[in-house]
Parts: sequence; C-alpha cells; structure tokens
Amino acid sequence: MDEKEIEELLQKYYCKDMHYEDGRILGSMYTEPPKIALKAFFKFYQANLGNSGLYKGTAEMEREVVKFLLRLASGKENFFGHVVSGGTEANIIALWAAREMGYKRVLATKDAHFSIRKAANLLKLPLENIEMKRGKMNIEDLESKIKENDIIVATAGTTPLGFIDPIEEIGKICQMHNCFLHVDAAFGGYIIPFLRELKYTNKKFGFDIPAVSTITIDPHKMGMAPYPAGGILSRENIFEKIVIEAPYLIEEKNDSLLGTRQSGSVAAAYAAQLYFGWRGYKEIVRRCMENTNYLVKRAKEEKLEILEMPEMNIVNLKVENVKKVKRELYARGWAVSTNPKYSSIRIVVMPHVTKEVIDKFLDEIKNIKKNYGL
Amino acid sequence: MDEKEIEELLQKYYCKDMHYEDGRILGSMYTEPPKIALKAFFKFYQANLGNSGLYKGTAEMEREVVKFLLRLASGKENFFGHVVSGGTEANIIALWAAREMGYKRVLATKDAHFSIRKAANLLKLPLENIEMKRGKMNIEDLESKIKENDIIVATAGTTPLGFIDPIEEIGKICQMHNCFLHVDAAFGGYIIPFLRELKYTNKKFGFDIPAVSTITIDPHKMGMAPYPAGGILSRENIFEKIVIEAPYLIEEKNDSLLGTRQSGSVAAAYAAQLYFGWRGYKEIVRRCMENTNYLVKRAKEEKLEILEMPEMNIVNLKVENVKKVKRELYARGWAVSTNPKYSSIRIVVMPHVTKEVIDKFLDEIKNIKKNYGL
Repeated sequence: MDEKEIEELLQKYYCKDMHYEDGRILGSMYTEPPKIALKAFFKFYQANLGNSGLYKGTAEMEREVVKFLLRLASGKENFFGHVVSGGTEANIIALWAAREMGYKRVLATKDAHFSIRKAANLLKLPLENIEMKRGKMNIEDLESKIKENDIIVATAGTTPLGFIDPIEEIGKICQMHNCFLHVDAAFGGYIIPFLRELKYTNKKFGFDIPAVSTITIDPHKMGMAPYPAGGILSRENIFEKIVIEAPYLIEEKNDSLLGTRQSGSVAAAYAAQLYFGWRGYKEIVRRCMENTNYLVKRAKEEKLEILEMPEMNIVNLKVENVKKVKRELYARGWAVSTNPKYSSIRIVVMPHVTKEVIDKFLDEIKNIKKNYGL
Repeated sequence: MDEKEIEELLQKYYCKDMHYEDGRILGSMYTEPPKIALKAFFKFYQANLGNSGLYKGTAEMEREVVKFLLRLASGKENFFGHVVSGGTEANIIALWAAREMGYKRVLATKDAHFSIRKAANLLKLPLENIEMKRGKMNIEDLESKIKENDIIVATAGTTPLGFIDPIEEIGKICQMHNCFLHVDAAFGGYIIPFLRELKYTNKKFGFDIPAVSTITIDPHKMGMAPYPAGGILSRENIFEKIVIEAPYLIEEKNDSLLGTRQSGSVAAAYAAQLYFGWRGYKEIVRRCMENTNYLVKRAKEEKLEILEMPEMNIVNLKVENVKKVKRELYARGWAVSTNPKYSSIRIVVMPHVTKEVIDKFLDEIKNIKKNYGL
C-alpha cells in the first residue's frame, strides 16, 4: 500500500483514540510531555538499553535520570537504579529481587496498585492483606500480622485516593522484624518532595527512612516523560539478584524484567528533567494542587460530596450510580476512572486538567445529574 | 535549561550511541523501520493499550497486527493475541498462563532464549534441560524426559544459530503426554513462512501443528517495526488465565504482564505490514537469504570456517579467540555478538547488512587476523 493511503488509514484510527491535548482524559496519571522531551524520544527511538553496549550515550542519560530520581527519593548518588517500562515492571523487579534475597511473603493494603497482586501471583509469593484506616495502611493491623522476612509494600500516592501510607512508622516496624520495605511512589515520587517545599505536607517516603530498600518512581507519570519510563531505585544492588547470562549481548548479561527496552523514553525523561529542573517540577505541582483545590471548592458549590480531602492531586467525587455516570460521561467524550468500592468518580488533576476543563466537566456532571436524577 | 542547550547535550549522547543506518551493528535482530512506520509510531506515541478503553483506534490496529501474525503462524482468525513489549514479555505470558492452567515444569534446550530461563525462575517452575543434536532439540532426549503436564518450549529461529527445532515431531510427543507446547518464533515467525514459499525449507512451526498452544512472534524483529513490539498468540484464550481486576481503568481489567503499554509501536507495526504486505516481507527474506549466502561464500573464500550451514539469516564464523576478536571489532566501531560456547562470531543478516557491509566487515576481520595472528 502506498504511504498516502496508509496515512489516511492511520488518521481514521487516530480519530477513534482519545488524546491528552483535548483535555477530556481525567482519570490517567499521564499528560502531554513538553516538545523537547518528544524530540528526544523520537531522536533516540532506536535505543535499547536491553543491549546497553550499543547505546553508551543512552546509558549515560539513564544514569542522569536515576540521579534525579534518587534526589527525589532522598537517596545517595551511589545507590542503584534503572529506567524500566513502568511501575508494574519496577514493582515486579523489587519483589522478585526480594524473593531471591530470601523474603517470603508480601503484605500490602487493598489500595496498593494491582501490579503488587500481579507480582505476588507471578512470583508465587503469598499475599496477606493489611487493613486500612481511611485509605491508609493501618499500623496496628500491620503490627499484628508482620513476621520475620516479610516484604512490606507501602504506597506514596495510592491509585484510588492519592494517599501516602504512614511510611516512617511502617519503616520502624519493618526494622524490628527484619523485613524488606518497598515503597511504590510511582505517582507520588515527583510530587511529595515538592509538597514538602510548598508546605502541603511534611511526610517522608524515601531512603531517608532507614528501612526502605527499594522505591518505584515513574518519569512517565508526573515526570512528564512519554511512555515507557518507569523507575526502580534501590539502596543495595538488587539487580545482581536477578541478573541472567545473555552471551549474545554486548554486555553479555541482562538485569531487568524485560529483554528489549525501548529507551527513547530515557532520553525523553532526561530532556524533561533538564527542561523543567527542580523548580519547574515544583511549579507543576504547585499548579496541580491549586487546580485540585479549585476542583474541591467548585464541586462543593455544586453540592457534590468529596470522598476524602486529597493529599495530592487526586480528587474523588461521591456519586450514587458510579457505573452509570462513568458510562454517560464516556458517551459524551469524557474519560474518568472510578473507585467502585468507594462509589466515587476519580479525577487525577494532571497539568492538562485546568480550571477551564474543571468547569466544563462539572457542567457536564450537572447535566447528567439533572437528566438522570443521579 | 533552554531547548537549544538541551538539543546540544542530546546530540553529544547521540554520537556515543550506535545506529543501524551506519551498517555496523551486525549482531542484533533489529533494523531501521520504514519511514511510514516511524511516522505512525510518533503519531500514536500517547497510545497505551494498558488502558485500551481510551484507545479504541489503536486497539483495532492491534487486532489487525494480530491477524497478520496469525496468518504467519497458520492460525485461525478467531485465535487470540496481543502486541506486547517484546519476546521476553511474550514468553513470560505464555509460561505464566500455562502454569495457571496446571502445567508444572519447563523443558527447553540451552539454545532457547534466556527469557525462558528467566520466566522459569520468575514463575518458580522447575526447568529441565533437553539436549541438542547439532543445535536442535534432541527428540530422543525429549522422549526420555517428558512427563504429563510439562511445558515444552521449542524455538523457531534460535538466538545463537537461527535453527528451527523439529517442532512437528515435538508436537506429536507433546500430544501423547498431554503437554503444553509453546513455540518461540520471536525471530523466525516473519521468516519461515517465506522460506517455505522460496523453497528454502518445508518446516512448520505454527498452529497447523495441533499440539502448539502459544507462539511468540515479534514485529520489532523481522517485522520491521520499532521497539516495543512483541507478539503473543494463542489457540485458546490464555489471557483470561492471567487477567487481573483494575477498577480504575476504563475496561477495569488488565491482561498482560505489563500495566502501561507503549502502543505507538502497534500503529507502527500496522503501518509496516500495510507498507510491505506479504509480498514485501517475502522480498525482504529473499534478499536477506541472498546476502546470507553471499556472506557464507565470501567467508569461505577468506578461509573462515562456518560453524553450521545457516537455516535462516544468521551466520556463525568460527574464530579462535572470540572475546579478543569481538573486542577488536568493537574498538573499530563494529558491534557483533558472539556464541562463546561455539567459539564463534554471530552475524544476523538483517536488511541493513548488505553485500557492501559484508565486504567491509570481512576486510576488517582479515586485518585483525593479520595483526594479531588470531
């Protein structure tokens, strides 16, 4: 088929997809990266750190990205890290390495990301559920269940509510019981350091908590990088626990979950961090929190109930028939996500969710409520 | 930092990477995709089939790619498939699903891809090694070791030699013992159908062998798509064996190993298959085999020993000090891979490995041999 015909077909499919720039995707932890990050992504589309011997330049950029992630996570320069395909791969790597180090069982709340359940199943690690207290890990329940050699997964920015588990307290309990503590900060890692500087919180989630062994932080969420760019950091070298011989590669070994790794996104994450810098990311968080507060205020004016006051830029609106509202919104071109168990609609206030978008969205909700009496 | 400075920095790293268009990467199963595939990749860079409800268009393109893969694999239109991040993810998914279906142990040769060892470790499946006869699975050894509920991994295009295991015979043995047969055709899937039409072989590897349950075929290898584009196909719906609830996604479930899936490469794989079509891929294979034969002929003229006559476009040159030759070539800007256990240098004759490249490369080898007496 000739190129023109193919382009026409692609355009047809393109129109069936949703796009961030339309400002109607309200339930995803992703946004449009800055132009320079996309330039970097496209320039380095061939790079594959699964065979890093061919891509010395990209490997250096990976180290620069890991350095920035370690700064976010209060880690030291000599700690370890990789840019991988996303939070799921990062979480699986952490739990896989922990299993190889002799840890036996996973403890996590039901609001931990589904990749934790997936990892436990994959790795044949039994998973024990820790109860929650208003969306956060219940310390008393953890204390009653924890055993030597457990793997505790704490979350810094839970998927449903954007909450931060009490990681300092969890860390103390882990130390007493000789446990492995993994922090899933896939979403919160690029937010919490700035929330602290902006005086929204004083919570810690990183390596400044001595028990923390590994941390997931994703550049392709609040780091403004395109997919696939997750980050896995570790205090000790966990990668040597999962390394496998691969004689045909230049470096003759492989130490991530995947073999081939699309690494254009490493260049993109690097470009994004040069472009924004610490101050730029702080400004993004400041604006997202301002819009979060705006959404909360406006929703209350519209007599919508807020499930819990947000700790970061995720807002849950309680509605009666969640499935119905989601369907109606979807039919009108809006993509929200829901928390069925909380009976709420979940809005992730990413940079493309501006005040204007929020106003339009609340109008839509109002219409749906009026038309359907929901 | 401003965009111009960032671009300069990126350029610095770019120059440290190797690139396919320079024609000096001789050991990778990847090549430069056609322009229209890259256009599609960049156009759909936002797409993430991990949340397919947002990307209905891309999901349709995935189905079109899977259809083409099923055609390569002699499958039926109603069989199942996904485009995933690569062969490693595809192989892990197959073995994971098999484990969930009650299969207990993996049998594979040492020339099976390292992702099979990785998957077995990850999934806690014991792995038994089946001996080889000249680079292929030894049927007698398989017969002596096979037990009910084993998972047999056969390879159609082994990484070291590009050999095709005797899959029809393996299939018969699997049927007798009620085993799960996974075929790793990550590389060979886009080659063997055309080798048959070009009368190079009459071997089968696909679903026309009744015992075959799952097949890996990667668009980002001989399918000319950019990373990340692996393919996993199955006769029954294996994806429902690994599905996990994910209420916050539009479809509220996830059925691949990864969560986020960079799906620009799905659009790219689709564009590539429209661009080349069946005839185009056949022509690529014809040319690669012609160049493979040219390399064999020219190497013999230079008194270099060929390890085994190639079955597809992978050639192994026996040399005495493999590590030394690889290092010397690398220092001169050539990236080859090696088979230490066969004491050979391994050339994957991808489309960018033209006769001209082959001539230059053999000159380089000649120089190294002369200078170092290797």
